Amino acid sequence: MIKKVKGYTKNGKVADYIPALSKADPNDVGIAIFDGNKTCFSEGEHHKLFTLQSISKVLTLALALMDHGEDVVFSKVGMEPTGDPFNSIAKLESHIPSKPLNPMINAGALAVSSLIKGSSNEEKLERLIQFVRELSGNSLITYNQEVAKSEFETADLNRSLSYFMKQHGVISGDIDVLLDFYTKQCAIEVNCEDLAKIGYSLAQQGEHPQKSYSIIPFEIARLVKTFMVTCGMYNASGEFAIRVGIPAKSGVSGGIVGAVPGGIGIGIYGPALDEKGNSIAGMKLLELLSAKHHLSIF
Amino acid sequence: MIKKVKGYTKNGKVADYIPALSKADPNDVGIAIFDGNKTCFSEGEHHKLFTLQSISKVLTLALALMDHGEDVVFSKVGMEPTGDPFNSIAKLESHIPSKPLNPMINAGALAVSSLIKGSSNEEKLERLIQFVRELSGNSLITYNQEVAKSEFETADLNRSLSYFMKQHGVISGDIDVLLDFYTKQCAIEVNCEDLAKIGYSLAQQGEHPQKSYSIIPFEIARLVKTFMVTCGMYNASGEFAIRVGIPAKSGVSGGIVGAVPGGIGIGIYGPALDEKGNSIAGMKLLELLSAKHHLSIF
Amino acid sequence: MIKKVKGYTKNGKVADYIPALSKADPNDVGIAIFDGNKTCFSEGEHHKLFTLQSISKVLTLALALMDHGEDVVFSKVGMEPTGDPFNSIAKLESHIPSKPLNPMINAGALAVSSLIKGSSNEEKLERLIQFVRELSGNSLITYNQEVAKSEFETADLNRSLSYFMKQHGVISGDIDVLLDFYTKQCAIEVNCEDLAKIGYSLAQQGEHPQKSYSIIPFEIARLVKTFMVTCGMYNASGEFAIRVGIPAKSGVSGGIVGAVPGGIGIGIYGPALDEKGNSIAGMKLLELLSAKHHLSIF
Amino acid sequence: MIKKVKGYTKNGKVADYIPALSKADPNDVGIAIFDGNKTCFSEGEHHKLFTLQSISKVLTLALALMDHGEDVVFSKVGMEPTGDPFNSIAKLESHIPSKPLNPMINAGALAVSSLIKGSSNEEKLERLIQFVRELSGNSLITYNQEVAKSEFETADLNRSLSYFMKQHGVISGDIDVLLDFYTKQCAIEVNCEDLAKIGYSLAQQGEHPQKSYSIIPFEIARLVKTFMVTCGMYNASGEFAIRVGIPAKSGVSGGIVGAVPGGIGIGIYGPALDEKGNSIAGMKLLELLSAKHHLSIF
Repeated sequence: MIKKVKGYTKNGKVADYIPALSKADPNDVGIAIFDGNKTCFSEGEHHKLFTLQSISKVLTLALALMDHGEDVVFSKVGMEPTGDPFNSIAKLESHIPSKPLNPMINAGALAVSSLIKGSSNEEKLERLIQFVRELSGNSLITYNQEVAKSEFETADLNRSLSYFMKQHGVISGDIDVLLDFYTKQCAIEVNCEDLAKIGYSLAQQGEHPQKSYSIIPFEIARLVKTFMVTCGMYNASGEFAIRVGIPAKSGVSGGIVGAVPGGIGIGIYGPALDEKGNSIAGMKLLELLSAKHHLSIF
Repeated sequence: MIKKVKGYTKNGKVADYIPALSKADPNDVGIAIFDGNKTCFSEGEHHKLFTLQSISKVLTLALALMDHGEDVVFSKVGMEPTGDPFNSIAKLESHIPSKPLNPMINAGALAVSSLIKGSSNEEKLERLIQFVRELSGNSLITYNQEVAKSEFETADLNRSLSYFMKQHGVISGDIDVLLDFYTKQCAIEVNCEDLAKIGYSLAQQGEHPQKSYSIIPFEIARLVKTFMVTCGMYNASGEFAIRVGIPAKSGVSGGIVGAVPGGIGIGIYGPALDEKGNSIAGMKLLELLSAKHHLSIF
Repeated sequence: MIKKVKGYTKNGKVADYIPALSKADPNDVGIAIFDGNKTCFSEGEHHKLFTLQSISKVLTLALALMDHGEDVVFSKVGMEPTGDPFNSIAKLESHIPSKPLNPMINAGALAVSSLIKGSSNEEKLERLIQFVRELSGNSLITYNQEVAKSEFETADLNRSLSYFMKQHGVISGDIDVLLDFYTKQCAIEVNCEDLAKIGYSLAQQGEHPQKSYSIIPFEIARLVKTFMVTCGMYNASGEFAIRVGIPAKSGVSGGIVGAVPGGIGIGIYGPALDEKGNSIAGMKLLELLSAKHHLSIF
Repeated sequence: MIKKVKGYTKNGKVADYIPALSKADPNDVGIAIFDGNKTCFSEGEHHKLFTLQSISKVLTLALALMDHGEDVVFSKVGMEPTGDPFNSIAKLESHIPSKPLNPMINAGALAVSSLIKGSSNEEKLERLIQFVRELSGNSLITYNQEVAKSEFETADLNRSLSYFMKQHGVISGDIDVLLDFYTKQCAIEVNCEDLAKIGYSLAQQGEHPQKSYSIIPFEIARLVKTFMVTCGMYNASGEFAIRVGIPAKSGVSGGIVGAVPGGIGIGIYGPALDEKGNSIAGMKLLELLSAKHHLSIF
């Protein structure tokens, strides 16, 4: 399978805004698929660790909804897709009231992260990492301190978004404390198998792969997957819905998590990105998989 | 069922930009549901005729795709949802190249309509109406000349969008000829049962309700339904996907067509609109239906 | 003087959106200066005819103010400079109420042209041309029919702006009739000496060069010159005010009219344009003149 | 004179985003006029102290130009007026390269302030205050610590603008250090007479009122006054140029400095503001003065 998409990596580019990301090997492509059975199907660089980056937006959204419920969360962030880039600030100014359009763009994800319960960033992060460990069944998951530090130092655009929202009452509190949490959340490290199991948990409506209880309530898992369809692949989400039709979320590290209804989780790694910031080989891989196995929800 | 949502009509407003629409009774609510069996389930004002308005965007998209294929159509219009109102012009200016973001906003629908094959507007319109008749199984469907005329006379914003796109090479030819076709397409008249059967045709992947052949090819029906999910309900599409999760398209006449995967078509009429231009009682009706019968695709 | 700026023409480009403009010789540079004495000082291609293009905006503004007074005119168009290009539509959408920011951008000029009194376009045009003849003292001035025709045929962006404003009640009536007048107004032909005398009339607070009466009332001449300073050179007006400081208006034909307070009129022709649409040699010429003779109003 | 405009204060509102400003008496109106003679003409609340706020933008621009010259300053900030509000962020995103349009909007003023020479904020502020003392001939001028502190604490929008510019390389260094300087510069306290003398210094092309040397070089004074005309009164600058025609700069404290060419300085205080943030009585006062004494530069 990977053989068929390997060639696409040449047309992509590794993210280079922080050194840690730019060191990734653009030729890497890995995939893991998990359907609830004991072992994952996996191929390629499925064992390499990479940071969640924007994939974390899906997980903090789930956790914030579990912490506060829909009313509180959606008083701070909207539900509508946007045709703008994920890091755009224009709509915060032109929309009244100033409120990020959805939780998958940076502004919205920052607003969501500000809601995670905990008396300190340590506690919040521990709760989030514990949540990721449960979803993936991997108790070794943690965050990459070097990546978090680099991102914190270069997070001026996210600071700009945050202060803008603070001015308009969308978020409150110390912005650097929020950025500290946000950059650590983005730096949580996983491999393809972890992602596949997280995707499976979402696909299964939140049920844990090897346990009997539900980690994410049904309604929240459904809601999160809806956002993955309408806004999961940056401003290529519409085309992805048409070409692939699988609820999915990508990150600039080259990771993609997919949650196929009926219970299949997919984890992909391919750090060479297309111009919209999605893994170029990963997108192709999902397109092939969806066509071959009729995985589109549409 | 209608009893439960009737009260919502008081919070809505009938579209009033042309006299023909403003004459609608804001208290009207009607629904028809068709699952392929001989008769529709129907309730309320299901027999009243109303014009398709934006619902026609779904049908011209299908026809244009059947006429030209994806490559031609998507060279003129994008696939991405937009956070802007359906009649906005700003992104045509700020995006390079100038190309409407998707076929469900006015600019995109105008570009799609300009692609319908035919040597004259009469021929194009006949083809489109014939297509609607086949999808609905109602050979009496035609368009309302009075509404078409009114809309043509007040279509200055659509003219502005069209000339802007002509300047940038997205469309060509005489704009008033295009507007003539476009306003007639919007003025095609149906009732709830017609819409339910059209929805059924889409839900059935394009198969005709009472015939053995497919009117819309499988792939095109799938593609159209994807747009209905990501952009079908104006800039309330994201929330609708979460609250309802049924591929659907609304019009300012108060109509909504729904296409539930697995083969259920829904036609709704309720001319009292919410502030985003969707039938206020219709939205509620679909929310109740979806929750009760688990119709969400997510 | 021209010798010093001739070299700049190489860095510019002749407008090419209609054939008539693209045929201009990019190396041409001409200037005429008139201070009320019998003869103009002139140099270079001062005898060549060129069309007014955007320079006409200054003259229709003066005429509309004489026709209706400030209250009527400024109910249709604002007084504020804009950082956007002269043909931008975005602010018409984002500003409420929808009203062009000033009469020097295309939208504003179209709104102003729609106000010129006359029972037909012929009469309106005759009034405008007569006005230009009086200001310049040249009774032979007329418009170039070929240029007007070409511009009318390619005026889709101006049509878009006009229909947008019609939708929002800024202008009314038949848009193609307005465009016919507007493109003819832009096609009025002058040479450098004509422009210098027009500039002199404005500089003299509206007094006619060789007559005893005032063609433009003092207050209107003052008002028009203020717009020439704040918005006369497209979105290079701010820099022009700093570097040159002379009330001036340019056109894409390469013409510039200047009105130095105290009574000096300047007419320039140089069809090689910079990227903002101003005569590249003409701008330099005015900078040199202003520095040498201390002509800045600041 | 003040009697004639006193009534306008009722239609205005005192700025209330920080307590210190909201405590101003909306009925206050004061004016001082200085023409180089020993004493100022003054009337009304000319003795009350108020903070410079945006008026400081003019002074830091002059100082930055004296520190670095035009090339450095205008590599960081543009020269063009903008139709947007003074605190808008949209154009920083839509313009490429990201650079504030002019030094009179907040983004531009922040970029300019970041250029003031000095090894620490103390030193920079001392230099700036010393500059203001020289221009006004008042050695007692200092800044209001309470106002500076309040503004620093509520400066989230300016932080947002600053981080956005830092992301795009327009400014560098610690943003809170910049904000500390910026809010102190805005909190410098003057009365009408101080402002009148500052205006006189600018009007006199930078010459000191009672000394023989020039505090601001001729070219820089001219440049600064040009910005006062094109962008000095927020997004009412265009109308102000038409109605008044005096180089002037306002602040949300209700102050306005005017610099009439030929050597008249005007200082006004009137904390009741119109909806664009300019002193409502002050604007009217300047209009009356300009009309009566023919002070317009146009």
